[in-house]
Formats: sequence, structure tokens, C-alpha cells
Amino acid sequence: MSKEIQFAVIGGGSWATALVKMLCENVTRLNWYMRNDDAIAHIKKEQHNPNYLSSVEFNTQQLNLTSDINEAVKDADYIIFAIPSAFLKSSLDTLEVSLTDKTIFSAIKGIVPESSLIVGEHFNQYHNIPFEQIGVITGPCHAEEVALERLSYLTIACADEDRAKIMANHLSNHYITCKTTEDVIGTEYAAVLKNIYAIAAGIAHGLGYGDNFQSVLMSNAIREMKRFIKKRYKMKRNINDSAYLGDLLVTGYSVFSRNRMFGNMIGKGYTVKSAQMEMSMIAEGYYAAKSAYLINKQSEKKARTPIINSVYAILYENKNPKKVFLKLVDKLD
Amino acid sequence: MSKEIQFAVIGGGSWATALVKMLCENVTRLNWYMRNDDAIAHIKKEQHNPNYLSSVEFNTQQLNLTSDINEAVKDADYIIFAIPSAFLKSSLDTLEVSLTDKTIFSAIKGIVPESSLIVGEHFNQYHNIPFEQIGVITGPCHAEEVALERLSYLTIACADEDRAKIMANHLSNHYITCKTTEDVIGTEYAAVLKNIYAIAAGIAHGLGYGDNFQSVLMSNAIREMKRFIKKRYKMKRNINDSAYLGDLLVTGYSVFSRNRMFGNMIGKGYTVKSAQMEMSMIAEGYYAAKSAYLINKQSEKKARTPIINSVYAILYENKNPKKVFLKLVDKLD
Repeated sequence: MSKEIQFAVIGGGSWATALVKMLCENVTRLNWYMRNDDAIAHIKKEQHNPNYLSSVEFNTQQLNLTSDINEAVKDADYIIFAIPSAFLKSSLDTLEVSLTDKTIFSAIKGIVPESSLIVGEHFNQYHNIPFEQIGVITGPCHAEEVALERLSYLTIACADEDRAKIMANHLSNHYITCKTTEDVIGTEYAAVLKNIYAIAAGIAHGLGYGDNFQSVLMSNAIREMKRFIKKRYKMKRNINDSAYLGDLLVTGYSVFSRNRMFGNMIGKGYTVKSAQMEMSMIAEGYYAAKSAYLINKQSEKKARTPIINSVYAILYENKNPKKVFLKLVDKLD
Repeated sequence: MSKEIQFAVIGGGSWATALVKMLCENVTRLNWYMRNDDAIAHIKKEQHNPNYLSSVEFNTQQLNLTSDINEAVKDADYIIFAIPSAFLKSSLDTLEVSLTDKTIFSAIKGIVPESSLIVGEHFNQYHNIPFEQIGVITGPCHAEEVALERLSYLTIACADEDRAKIMANHLSNHYITCKTTEDVIGTEYAAVLKNIYAIAAGIAHGLGYGDNFQSVLMSNAIREMKRFIKKRYKMKRNINDSAYLGDLLVTGYSVFSRNRMFGNMIGKGYTVKSAQMEMSMIAEGYYAAKSAYLINKQSEKKARTPIINSVYAILYENKNPKKVFLKLVDKLD
């Protein structure tokens, strides 16, 4: 029997916790890094993460828990990053171990603010990892439903099909079905953009638009996402596959989505600052709106993106949401 | 100024009532047929439909109300049918006035059980109406949100662009935006199929599947809808336009949808008969599932339709929903 592949999961949030749960169904041991030493002590003593998905019980015999990212990464073959994109660079700055012979999977779904790159591109450009060693794990998947072992489908993207399959095999179980694709760029952008569209859905709801409009907004959002991604990386993809449309829907229709909630507060009249203060976690879509807007604006290959532009105008140009939406609705069909 | 076009609306339900409300924003008078004489008397006296959208007030000066379908149709140029497809043939059997010089719009969203045809095809084959005089009015649009004057988008389909535009102009107002298309067959099939997928969503919910699965189901449903419609009538269409994807979403994600509710009861263990007895209105998707399944099965141009086949097996072959879905989930991705 071949040696077991060593996995490391970087992050202590709900999605990281869900990924550790999935891996634990298939591997003997794995490395799990999180910053918070108290949480580590709690997991060791009580067998569950005190802060996220606390109903999930772990067999701590399977976990090499550490708050030292170098220790987590050192002997790992496959490393899954599942921390907010805003913290990625600072975490990587503390890394002394080389990543060049590792396989890196992003479960982050964000744009790295410092480089304005999606995570895969960031690892490629700033850490010299070849694209064959970079992959993406994407949904549609609320971590909370993984905790409940409700049937969910993941898409595993990697230019190297073998690595995608290895990751897929290690995440699959009786409640997780995985498919693989080569579209690293497209799936990661989809995961980023959907958070912006969820903010737009929230703003619309906050402004008093109803379900009829929400369905038109989502129908326009998936067409806009297709245009945007096509300009970034052209390849044959079906935008209605689960990793694109499914991911948009699970977030855009979720009343628990932080992004949708954030948008809803903006629509109801909160300022960006007060909405952020009310929420203990920062909505990824807030950063994504700026990055996506600028990436598109500064590119020679611009896509028509009325929804992203509207969210950007509201969040970063202090434009009145009601007025912005009155103009936006004329651009939808 | 040219003579005002005379409209007739056939039907007394919520969607018919919403259409009359929209037309009343733009025309001086219109003919409104419903079977129920008591409802007519109530509208004349109280200015609202007692049974549907009762918050909508009408100016009865604008309404030629009648329970005689011949009277409603006689002097009408444009006739909108908005009755359940199961009652269309019996209503048309009482018609003595010729329809051949009229423009017929279907707002029915069903398959005529007696002919196994969508409404446009039925009018063409059984009433000799040329396709240029046949159109479809489709959503995504819950009638209840029209009553609240919440912004909604309609798609008006007709092979004759001028007639589509005339209908669009007469339905548009500050809360209704219309677009036109030539795709009569595709938009009507989309409106029919979405009810089957809403039943599937309801069954899944009743069986305990969660939001992650629902988004995968919808992602697969729109791809299945595309395959099905393409086999029926091949033309260039974007399946993510509001009339297709939007209409699927507004129904599939609505907890008020009769079709979703019906499916939910089936998933929770009700028999088809007991679920139908519990509901005062019959879910259109129940009939659509049979017709769509048979149309596809008997066609030389078959599409792969695992979701329709599963709903058919549960509703018409008495198959166990849990077992059918355990097989279905392996066919989704």
C-alpha cells in the first residue's frame, strides 16, 4: 500500500472546520493550523471547535493541531488554505518552509487585496508555484450543512487532472460528491463574484424589491458572471454547472449569507461603516466588489458588468442605493 | 389617433386578475371573462375580485365583465387566455365565435391534457390560428407581487414581432418591464417545465435535503430544460434569460409555489391523492410531469431528463420518493 498523502488545512473558521471533517472520513491523520491557541486547547479537550460548527465531533487522534503555520506545512503534501483572503498575505509572510514542491488548494473564495489577484494567481506569481500544483475547492456548499451531513456537491479544479482526482477522492464520502475540472481561474472567479451578487440581492431586498425582481437579478448575474470570467480566461465551460450557477444560487438565495445580510443593511439605509460594525465578520464580497471592479476597469478586455459597477458605486463611491438601483433596473432584462 | 385595440382576458384566477390590472393601466376598456357569476357581481359592487388579489381595486368603468365567453371574445382583437390548461379545451368547446382573425396570447403555462400540446401548438393545430397570431406571456412573475406593484419583468413571445411589441406596450408600466422574443415554443415549454422542477425541489425539501442540494438541483434543472427545449424547437436562445432561468428560480425557490408545496408533501410521505386533497388548487406541474415525460419518451429526438423522469416515476408509477432520489442524486453533478 502506498504511503498516505499528508494533508494540512490552514484556517480555523467554519469552512476550514468542515474541510477537516471531510478529510477525517478518509485519512488517518492531518495537520490543522489555526491562529487561536485557546481554540486548539478546546478542541484537544472537548473534541469540537468552540467557535464554528461546534456540533461536529472530532477524533483528536487524527489531528495534528498547531498554531505554528510552518509546523503545519512542513511535512504536508497537499495544503488547503481556508482563511479570509484579507489575511492570506500576512499568514504567508510568516512562512519559512518552501511551498514549491507542495500542492496548494484554495478554499478561500476571495481576491488577495495586496496583489488584486485571485488566490491561485497569487500563489503562482508571488510564490512561484506552477499552475499544475494549484487547485481550487468550490461549492455550492454551506459549511453548516456539511456539519449536518446533508448531501452536498463540491467541484475540485486543477490544471493537473491527477491532483484534482486525488483531492476529490479524499473529500468524497456518503454526504459529499465531488466532480473535477481544469477551470481553476473560472471556478475561483465564480466563487468570488457570487459574493458581490449576494450583496446586490441583499441591497435589493433591503430596498423593498421582491422575489420577482430577485429572480431577474440572479438571471442577469449569471450572464454577467459568464461575460466577466470569459474575459479573464477563455475556455469551454458551462456556466450553469454547479460550481458557477449553483454557487451563485446557494449564496444569493441564502438568508444566512453574510454578504446578503450586509447588502440588506445597506439597502435599509445603514452606512457601510455602521453595517460593518453591526456584523462581527467581514463580508468577503465587500473586498471582492472593489477588486473585481478595478480588475475589469483596468483590463484591456472589459466585460459589461452593470451589477458589479452598481455595488461598487454604493460601497465605495458613497452613492445612494435607491438611486443606483433605479438606474440598474433599466439595464437588466 | 388610431382606434384603441380591444383586449379580452379569459380567466378569473390570480394571474388573470394581475393581467387585467396591468392592462387597465393602459387601456380605456377591456373584456374580462370568468365563469363565476357571483365573483362578477362582487367585482361590480365592491371593485375587487373576492377570490384572488383582493387588495387590487378596479375602476369598473373600465371592465366589460361577462360569464359568456363568446361575448368576451366577439369584438376583441387580442385575447389572453389565463385559465388552467386542464380547463382550456372545455372552455374552447363552448366558443362559437371564430378565432382565426384574432391574436391569441397564452398566459397559461401548461400542457393541454387532451392534445398533449403546449397552448400555442394547440391553438395552431385545433383552431387553425397561424403562428404569427399566437403569443406567450411569461414571467418570472408572481401575481401577488403585481398586486403590490413590485417591479417585475415579463417576456412577450410572438413570431410576429409587431404583435409582441403591441402586447408589451400594453402591459408595461412603472412596475412592469417587458421584453420581446420570437421564441414562442421555448418560453412556453420553460414555463411548463419549471413547475415540474418546483415539484422536484419540494420533494427534495420534504425528504430532508438542504440548501446545498437545492442549488445543485436547480443548476441541473436549467441544463435539463435547455436540452429538452432544444429537442423540441432548435433556435438561438440564451437559457439564462429571465423567461427561462428567472422563471425557474422564482418558482423553484418560492415557498408559496403550489407546485413546490405539493412536492414537499409527497416528499414527507403523503400519497399523491392525499396531497391533492389537502390542496384546494391543483398543481399544474402534476399534469406537466406526465405530458413532458410522454412527449420526450415518444419523440424521436429524446433529451436526457433525469429530473422529469424521477418526478414522473414518483407521481405516476407509485415509486418511493426516497429511493427514486437516491438514484437521481448520482445522475446530478
